[in-house]
Amino acid sequence: MERTKNILTGDRPTGSLHIGHYAGSLENRVKLQDEYKCFFIIADFQVLTDHLSETKRISENIKEIAIDYLSVGINPQKSSIFIQSLIPEITELAMYFSMLVSVPRLQRNPTVKEEMRVAKIGKKELSLGFLSYPVSQAADILSVRASLVPVGQDQLPHMEQTKEIARSFNRFFGETFPVPEALLSNFPRLPGIDGQKMSKSRKNAIYLKDSSVDVARKVMQSYTDPLRIHATDPGHTRGNVVFSYLDAFYQDKKELRELKNKYRKGKIGDVALKKILIETLNIFLEPIRQKRKEFESNPKLIKEILEIGTEEARKEAKQTLSFVKDAMGFNFTRIFK
Amino acid sequence: MERTKNILTGDRPTGSLHIGHYAGSLENRVKLQDEYKCFFIIADFQVLTDHLSETKRISENIKEIAIDYLSVGINPQKSSIFIQSLIPEITELAMYFSMLVSVPRLQRNPTVKEEMRVAKIGKKELSLGFLSYPVSQAADILSVRASLVPVGQDQLPHMEQTKEIARSFNRFFGETFPVPEALLSNFPRLPGIDGQKMSKSRKNAIYLKDSSVDVARKVMQSYTDPLRIHATDPGHTRGNVVFSYLDAFYQDKKELRELKNKYRKGKIGDVALKKILIETLNIFLEPIRQKRKEFESNPKLIKEILEIGTEEARKEAKQTLSFVKDAMGFNFTRIFK
Repeated sequence: MERTKNILTGDRPTGSLHIGHYAGSLENRVKLQDEYKCFFIIADFQVLTDHLSETKRISENIKEIAIDYLSVGINPQKSSIFIQSLIPEITELAMYFSMLVSVPRLQRNPTVKEEMRVAKIGKKELSLGFLSYPVSQAADILSVRASLVPVGQDQLPHMEQTKEIARSFNRFFGETFPVPEALLSNFPRLPGIDGQKMSKSRKNAIYLKDSSVDVARKVMQSYTDPLRIHATDPGHTRGNVVFSYLDAFYQDKKELRELKNKYRKGKIGDVALKKILIETLNIFLEPIRQKRKEFESNPKLIKEILEIGTEEARKEAKQTLSFVKDAMGFNFTRIFK
Repeated sequence: MERTKNILTGDRPTGSLHIGHYAGSLENRVKLQDEYKCFFIIADFQVLTDHLSETKRISENIKEIAIDYLSVGINPQKSSIFIQSLIPEITELAMYFSMLVSVPRLQRNPTVKEEMRVAKIGKKELSLGFLSYPVSQAADILSVRASLVPVGQDQLPHMEQTKEIARSFNRFFGETFPVPEALLSNFPRLPGIDGQKMSKSRKNAIYLKDSSVDVARKVMQSYTDPLRIHATDPGHTRGNVVFSYLDAFYQDKKELRELKNKYRKGKIGDVALKKILIETLNIFLEPIRQKRKEFESNPKLIKEILEIGTEEARKEAKQTLSFVKDAMGFNFTRIFK
């Protein structure tokens, strides 16, 4: 019987997850659980690369993300949710991998370059930890010998790096790792309510944990079609934040097409449209809010789920490390046997 | 009562130790044991940086070095001899430290540059592991919170890096580490029998495990004074390999001065001088050979000594890691307590 393929993906615990995370990734993860053994990593080590002065917040964020995962339907009976920093085997794996990757190769990584630009990190201040985080990410993925990694477009350079490391290790020490493939999300990234990239720092996100009051307020502030002045003007649906959200969450696609036609003809105003979106989002969010409440009232359960998930991932990582050390002839626990 | 200060020093398991290691370092370590708690690291992770294709030999080399240590008088009742790769806490510490060190800072390290030059590693091939080994070395030292590190001149840049990391961590997260000081060896490095740097790769070393036959053969090949042709010519004692060895191992310093005078006046030939050196080295090496025999016949004891030493070092490293994670507010084993 063929072994179920492993999947690894996850998030950095830098804050709560928003509807953009859901549409771009979480929704898909929930489906993948039935077909694959999924490992969902809460990548707290990786937060250190650019949030070193905010370490005290990480603990709270880990809980938030775990609750987000569980509330949207990630099922701990099927999948493992785990905390990266509780798997020291990952840092050891990353150390071995660091011997197989050249510094110029890391310096060429376009995602790292872009992140440095955004975070205003100059070449002179670039920390070793920041430069090497794609190697650490390869260790995350390969620690559970994942075959598939659901990622967004911006993560493709890291996937290339991971594949190179897997191939390079296999070539050097014999077949040890599957060479993992990226599973590109086919859903475009949702914009924030201001039309910019949805992110915590821009304060333009609708969170999975937002109350119906929050949702109403944020939707009412959302950008629609800046060229439209009166409710009876013909409106644009493309590049319109409200329709981006409706595309993602409005269930009846036929009705949605009609709604778009109406909007283009100036037969529905922005306020009416936003009310529809508010209702749509609340229909989507209400069961999530209910589940969140249950989990929030049971922190012991969350703790248990994280402990078990971490134990499951660690078991895989220990096995991997043992394969790795055996392949390298570097297993000195058995030195005198 | 003041806590005994910790010392950390050690060797990479790339081969057996030679009389140069003894004169430059081991002799001093044996003395330091009485005053300090000494941790002697067998740094096998670090071998990977430039011997990745020779991993299979490391296991044998670890045993050799442990036997070398024990044979010269390192006392496992007082000191801990440990294997780096069995302390995963070191890689985790190194990962935290990697956030505190910039890439250009590492690229400026003169010892790394020199080693790249010698090993003919170009900038383009420089591996992440090679670039970052001084950070890993800082993790070795700080893992046992060592206050003193006996080193040779070439290791001073790494000590500077270690001190910077300790200070930087303390500044960022509060006083956690002692800032360790280098304890410079005052004994000059012994040359190899050909007058070059003594090293395994140059095949010019006299090993602690060499038999009296090996020693006689090697001493007879040793360079003396290349300007001297006849035994009756006045000879030079400086830059003379045989006298370098006599300086290190001839016990009676007064007699040695007389010997030098004779040599300078052409009153003793090279062969006679070499015979004196052979006898001197054998007097020094014979008890070491005896102890080696005992240890070689008892591999179980070596295993036990390494296991206990590693356990002792690991206990310190675990404690250090716990201090580090607490200081950072990054200790998620306690996340839901």
